[in-house]
Amino acid sequence: MTVSPQFSRTESWALTTLTIACFGVLANVFQGDGNPVSASLAFSGICYTSTYCMIKWLGATFIKANLKGRDMSKLKKVEIPEAMGAVAAIVYLLAIITFIPFPFYKDIVTATSGGGNRDFVIEAQHIETGRLLHKFPHNKLASYLSAILSLQVIVILGIGDDLFDIRWRHKVLIPAFGAIPVLIVYFVDFGVTQISLPTFLRPYVGGRELVDLGVLYYLYMAGFAIFCPNSINILAGINGIEVAQSLVLALLILLNDVLYLLPSAPYPHPAIDSHLFSVYLLLPFVGVSLALLKHNWFPSKVFVGDTYCYFAGMLFAVDGILGHFSKTLWLLLIPQVFNFIYSAPQILHLVPCPRHRLPHFNVRTGLMEPSRVTFERPLRPIIQTVMKIAAAVKLLDIKTDESGNIIESSNFTIINLWLVWFGPMREDRLAMGLIALQIACGLLGLFIRHKLALLIFTSDNLQHSSII
Amino acid sequence: MTVSPQFSRTESWALTTLTIACFGVLANVFQGDGNPVSASLAFSGICYTSTYCMIKWLGATFIKANLKGRDMSKLKKVEIPEAMGAVAAIVYLLAIITFIPFPFYKDIVTATSGGGNRDFVIEAQHIETGRLLHKFPHNKLASYLSAILSLQVIVILGIGDDLFDIRWRHKVLIPAFGAIPVLIVYFVDFGVTQISLPTFLRPYVGGRELVDLGVLYYLYMAGFAIFCPNSINILAGINGIEVAQSLVLALLILLNDVLYLLPSAPYPHPAIDSHLFSVYLLLPFVGVSLALLKHNWFPSKVFVGDTYCYFAGMLFAVDGILGHFSKTLWLLLIPQVFNFIYSAPQILHLVPCPRHRLPHFNVRTGLMEPSRVTFERPLRPIIQTVMKIAAAVKLLDIKTDESGNIIESSNFTIINLWLVWFGPMREDRLAMGLIALQIACGLLGLFIRHKLALLIFTSDNLQHSSII
Repeated sequence: MTVSPQFSRTESWALTTLTIACFGVLANVFQGDGNPVSASLAFSGICYTSTYCMIKWLGATFIKANLKGRDMSKLKKVEIPEAMGAVAAIVYLLAIITFIPFPFYKDIVTATSGGGNRDFVIEAQHIETGRLLHKFPHNKLASYLSAILSLQVIVILGIGDDLFDIRWRHKVLIPAFGAIPVLIVYFVDFGVTQISLPTFLRPYVGGRELVDLGVLYYLYMAGFAIFCPNSINILAGINGIEVAQSLVLALLILLNDVLYLLPSAPYPHPAIDSHLFSVYLLLPFVGVSLALLKHNWFPSKVFVGDTYCYFAGMLFAVDGILGHFSKTLWLLLIPQVFNFIYSAPQILHLVPCPRHRLPHFNVRTGLMEPSRVTFERPLRPIIQTVMKIAAAVKLLDIKTDESGNIIESSNFTIINLWLVWFGPMREDRLAMGLIALQIACGLLGLFIRHKLALLIFTSDNLQHSSII
Repeated sequence: MTVSPQFSRTESWALTTLTIACFGVLANVFQGDGNPVSASLAFSGICYTSTYCMIKWLGATFIKANLKGRDMSKLKKVEIPEAMGAVAAIVYLLAIITFIPFPFYKDIVTATSGGGNRDFVIEAQHIETGRLLHKFPHNKLASYLSAILSLQVIVILGIGDDLFDIRWRHKVLIPAFGAIPVLIVYFVDFGVTQISLPTFLRPYVGGRELVDLGVLYYLYMAGFAIFCPNSINILAGINGIEVAQSLVLALLILLNDVLYLLPSAPYPHPAIDSHLFSVYLLLPFVGVSLALLKHNWFPSKVFVGDTYCYFAGMLFAVDGILGHFSKTLWLLLIPQVFNFIYSAPQILHLVPCPRHRLPHFNVRTGLMEPSRVTFERPLRPIIQTVMKIAAAVKLLDIKTDESGNIIESSNFTIINLWLVWFGPMREDRLAMGLIALQIACGLLGLFIRHKLALLIFTSDNLQHSSII
């Protein structure tokens, strides 16, 4: 069933009411020296309603422009619109740009010699009007803009990918281009490349708490920005999984942000700006993703396309880089990291890799089963040994011939592994299982971050307000 | 004839040599506290070679993805790739982002309390190392980034337009979205809305030289940003005209910029930053446009698509807005303004408007002739009168029936008008004629700007270094 441009009466009412309410909040915020967090929530609501409507309106147009695909895991393989994530991404970008005047003080240039020179500027007073009314000084503006630039680059290249079906080895580089704006502005505008070391490493660098990584720090950030989008893009292929995992990640990061903004957290705190920054970036994302999920959840009426995966991953990457909490993010990305390492033997072609590794849809039962790869030539002995060990600890499902050679194996993705563990199941139950895993890993990650970090670092920046 | 992915030996040599030379210049600039203008020239060269190659490499891919069209003004109507301007735009965007570290001082943050806080910053000293070594302070960074954001928005929406064939009344709004980032950052970051008045208007505002336009100034800027891209998009339809007119406009603006950077110009001068800013934005544009023109000039091997027209127009708009010389730009856009006003009766449907108004290709002569619109119902008398006057002063070519009713007319575009004036001609001569007109109008415009402006303003900012 494809998406339809008709709205039910309930839909129309709900969408109209929500939109009006959100604009009401915005008008209210704009009048007073209002609360940017309320404004961000209102933007999130508008993002939800506009993405919801745009997807319905544009469905037929996408199909006409050949942006369509068939869902192979259904009995009726109707054509549905593809690459709808691009719509969500564009709504998000316009929202996040329009949002700029809310969190930033307005500098007032009172004298100019022309040509855009700021000869005399009254900088807005840093009146602390409370935790949530806190506004950003102007030196944060460049970071904010660079984040949007990176997201736009990834959306432009992602659309290219959705249009042209780029080869894997080129695809992997798309996020590298996307990372350029954030890294370059970081270089020109901030340039701090020191990190604090875990206690157990300090003896090796002469007992210092901080170490300057220089160029290595940029390589680390670039690697992080390349990993996030690609890791989401390979944990994909069943209805709703791309959007649902991104939504869970966004909500987990928001939960972490909220820990810094709660009345019980220390205030003023050096990390508060970063976490407000993160809230502003993520709330509208939650809005567009919820709307997309509504159409993309089982049974999907639209596909999201690579653009959405890149875009979501890049959002987390820039959020982590500019908010200086990329270490925390790694903890939330445990399923993605696992899936990436687990996939590596096939991605690196140590083991043959079929064109598609989606789970297999059994037409008779209507259930998803692990997809399998068959080996026409015998694998190298060392690889066979490793695979047999993996099979023994239930990390693979293999078949051997009478001489003990592996002739068949389940594909190396976490989605197939889930089916190996829990047996065939319907597509939506499969997605729900993986999402539950993502939530569990994420909550565990946050627990580790805030409760166990003190074991290896001298301070958790949530408890202590004066750290370097 | 479509574009081919093969390179001749001469092409390979020329492109390789140019690329190596440009990287050489960049390496040189990067070592010393080098000259950003040289770096910009080198970027321009790299833009040329990469756009040139990308277009050749991607031709077949575009055709396969259904981005193709037939050239109706040729005897052999082969399919050639469409929307190639998007490639040029993307190369440009990546270049202009990578260029950031060259013109901006690097602020060095020496102490941070974490979370991206700039607690102690050594601002780069404003050492004036001469006119061309001049670097920008950081308060220009937000403007620069907002310009890139606007261009990216327009490219994303332009690609949508090329894919989906959006209706005219929606198309017109695309540049409005594109203008948002520049206007919002202008609002938050600069916010000057005063303009200096021509002398003859001053008595009406109590003799003041400056008048604060407030919200009107933003409306003016938005209008300007909507006009530029659309005006280039409607002066289109024959081989090479879109790129050639944009290239001429870019070169004319560069000429105007150079007037401020020449050794004879006053130094230091308040407008010098704006004009350097403009040079940095335009040089890479000249690079990508030359490469595009090489493939798009008669007989076209690729089409440029709406993306390029929007992108080029938006570049001029943001350049004029952020450089505070939009008045000068109007003078360079005289042919576009004329074409817009001349087209208005058809665009507003006062006179019937056919789906396409391109000139007509005569298969027998191989020449272009004015395309015509026939009126099935008689036009309103007032419109007939105006059209007859226009025909009398050679602004239209009309046909009347025996009772004096207009039954046919040439279409209302400057391209058709040129053919009405000078008779049928080959497509490339037509394009060259219009480009010559653009050059002539532009040079006249610059003459007016610098020689005659003193008649109505108290100062031309090129002569006087201390103005408001």
